[in-house]
Amino acid sequence: MKIVIAPDSFKGSLTATEAAGKMLQAVKLVDENFKVEVKPMADGGEGTLDSLLTATTGKRVSLRCIGPLGDEMNTAYGLLDSTTAVVECASIAGLPQVPMNRRNPDITTSYGIGEAIRNGLERGCTSFVIGLGGSAVNDGGLGMLQALGMKAWDKNGQEVGMFGKDLLHVSRISLNGLDSRLKNAKIMVACDVDNPLCGKKGATYVYGPQKGATNDQLLVYDLAMNRYAELIQSATGCELKDVPGAGAAGGLGFALLVIGAKLTSGAKLIAEKMGLEGTIRDADLVLTGEGQSDEQTLYGKAPGYVGSLAQKHGVPALLISGSLGEGRDTLAKRFTGYFSIVNKPIALEESMEQAGELLFEQTKQVVGLVNAFKNELIS
Amino acid sequence: MKIVIAPDSFKGSLTATEAAGKMLQAVKLVDENFKVEVKPMADGGEGTLDSLLTATTGKRVSLRCIGPLGDEMNTAYGLLDSTTAVVECASIAGLPQVPMNRRNPDITTSYGIGEAIRNGLERGCTSFVIGLGGSAVNDGGLGMLQALGMKAWDKNGQEVGMFGKDLLHVSRISLNGLDSRLKNAKIMVACDVDNPLCGKKGATYVYGPQKGATNDQLLVYDLAMNRYAELIQSATGCELKDVPGAGAAGGLGFALLVIGAKLTSGAKLIAEKMGLEGTIRDADLVLTGEGQSDEQTLYGKAPGYVGSLAQKHGVPALLISGSLGEGRDTLAKRFTGYFSIVNKPIALEESMEQAGELLFEQTKQVVGLVNAFKNELIS
Repeated sequence: MKIVIAPDSFKGSLTATEAAGKMLQAVKLVDENFKVEVKPMADGGEGTLDSLLTATTGKRVSLRCIGPLGDEMNTAYGLLDSTTAVVECASIAGLPQVPMNRRNPDITTSYGIGEAIRNGLERGCTSFVIGLGGSAVNDGGLGMLQALGMKAWDKNGQEVGMFGKDLLHVSRISLNGLDSRLKNAKIMVACDVDNPLCGKKGATYVYGPQKGATNDQLLVYDLAMNRYAELIQSATGCELKDVPGAGAAGGLGFALLVIGAKLTSGAKLIAEKMGLEGTIRDADLVLTGEGQSDEQTLYGKAPGYVGSLAQKHGVPALLISGSLGEGRDTLAKRFTGYFSIVNKPIALEESMEQAGELLFEQTKQVVGLVNAFKNELIS
Repeated sequence: MKIVIAPDSFKGSLTATEAAGKMLQAVKLVDENFKVEVKPMADGGEGTLDSLLTATTGKRVSLRCIGPLGDEMNTAYGLLDSTTAVVECASIAGLPQVPMNRRNPDITTSYGIGEAIRNGLERGCTSFVIGLGGSAVNDGGLGMLQALGMKAWDKNGQEVGMFGKDLLHVSRISLNGLDSRLKNAKIMVACDVDNPLCGKKGATYVYGPQKGATNDQLLVYDLAMNRYAELIQSATGCELKDVPGAGAAGGLGFALLVIGAKLTSGAKLIAEKMGLEGTIRDADLVLTGEGQSDEQTLYGKAPGYVGSLAQKHGVPALLISGSLGEGRDTLAKRFTGYFSIVNKPIALEESMEQAGELLFEQTKQVVGLVNAFKNELIS
């Protein structure tokens, strides 16, 4: 029996790679001769790089770059092959690098993302996969574009800095110095939001608060982001600020569109890059899971996408999640079975602490059951 | 596919019959063409009569008798066929009929049990199945034996009453008037405890407190029970008070031994009476469950016994319980799979309130999974 293990993360408990590891242990305990493919899923947020490197023969590349608070730091990006780089915003300009009490759009920058892309270009990469989730910035991608060669000046002709607060003073820009290798690069961005850059549904108003923006900052940043975008649009001749997703990651979506990126569903992009469909096609069983499953699971979330690939090829898929919420009945549309890892009445905190063990046990039960009853798979 | 549904009760939430009903609904939703046999299990306690009547073509017989507090009440026993009666102590001299604040060995009696047996004899029954669990009495079976014709006097030659307090004054007994039809009756008693009648491991010390006995009463009752038993043993010439189970149900075990009963494992006896093994033999799947499963489940508890019958005939058995406790790994020795009905972190009370719905959902998932993978059962 060939089994594909492709869970998402169990947020707050297990990364997707850890979850896949627990499931793998359980599957191997049922029958060590099963052929197993481990493809931990991601949607472009934290863990995306780990997942892609686990699921492929890609490797991690060390990177020294400017972190979100402007200090140099050591981080990494990935090389899936000699020409494809994976850049995860969450590990370069991400919330994990900014302590709660320092979250403030004024003092954060996306500069490191630009450095990572430039580093990839210097290695000869012509293809980029960029995960936008979990960013800590609201600089409209100013820092990233500067790292890639854009110039920006204030009304006094002084070149502005790389932080969010500098966005407020931009009055002229030039894209002439943009790295020319970007023209030939294919940049795919994992992005599951459809916010425009500005306005009440834009980057600042919707996502600013979780990055530390105060109410006073919201209006100021939204106006500045709009002015900045108009300047760039004048230079490129392209209307990009209302493209769905332009408002992702504090305007990084917009800035990536400026350098020719294409925004696409995170789960779909990551799955493609790890060759998930190809390995599901001839599998006998697909296992996925996540922290909480409910009706939303079927709409754009990684386990829902895994389930849809399995369904497309007539392979039964099972969902094993931390908890099953409202509307769980709809999960039957895509999964042959859905199970919670919880095995008794228990508090949320306790179940999260024990998530690894519980996932292992429930996977063992479910796969053991399948194995006991399966002589021949229904096709 | 033929499926046998044989859960125990989910204590505090669902009777075995209710649990079986929820499982049946779920199984029929997976495939309405499944052949299903519903055999709600019991061990001789509360619900035993319901289970046996649900699992067989037996019928309920109304009975007006003396309740545990001495008032007349309406209750019932069962007729499995024209010669086999089922008497459930829990519904005749049981805790459910005695409010917590009136639980007191002094004022409770097993008289109604004797009346039920006599009623059965009068209908021509020659076979009795008696469930001992859940009794409210600690009268040594004095009341029951009186209802069946025993006489007991105090030291002044006055005939004593039927309550526990009367046991304290018995100084002479006669079994000459015992219903003679008992000699030809086969009395099988469901009894899963091995306590002797008297002593620190006897009826009074071990079970007295849950029937309202105070510390002061324990010694008095234990001594009285011993005296009373010696009187009876002198009359019968049989040493019965140390037989394992004599101390069950406040000494009813002993009194039943006096009239020729045989004590036996509850689950085994009930299963035999409902023909469980015969229907499991050619089944493809057996479902059982209970409120809480753990290592103890395999030792004498009804779901463990159901699992052992399934195992004997090579039929896969699945356990679906309220919660899975310590030592659950050992359940794999007997069950092809074991699952909790809990589907998210949840408080005990909430899970108990929702037990019916949760059991329905988990049964649907598990049986749905089996159905999806089963083309041909492994034998």
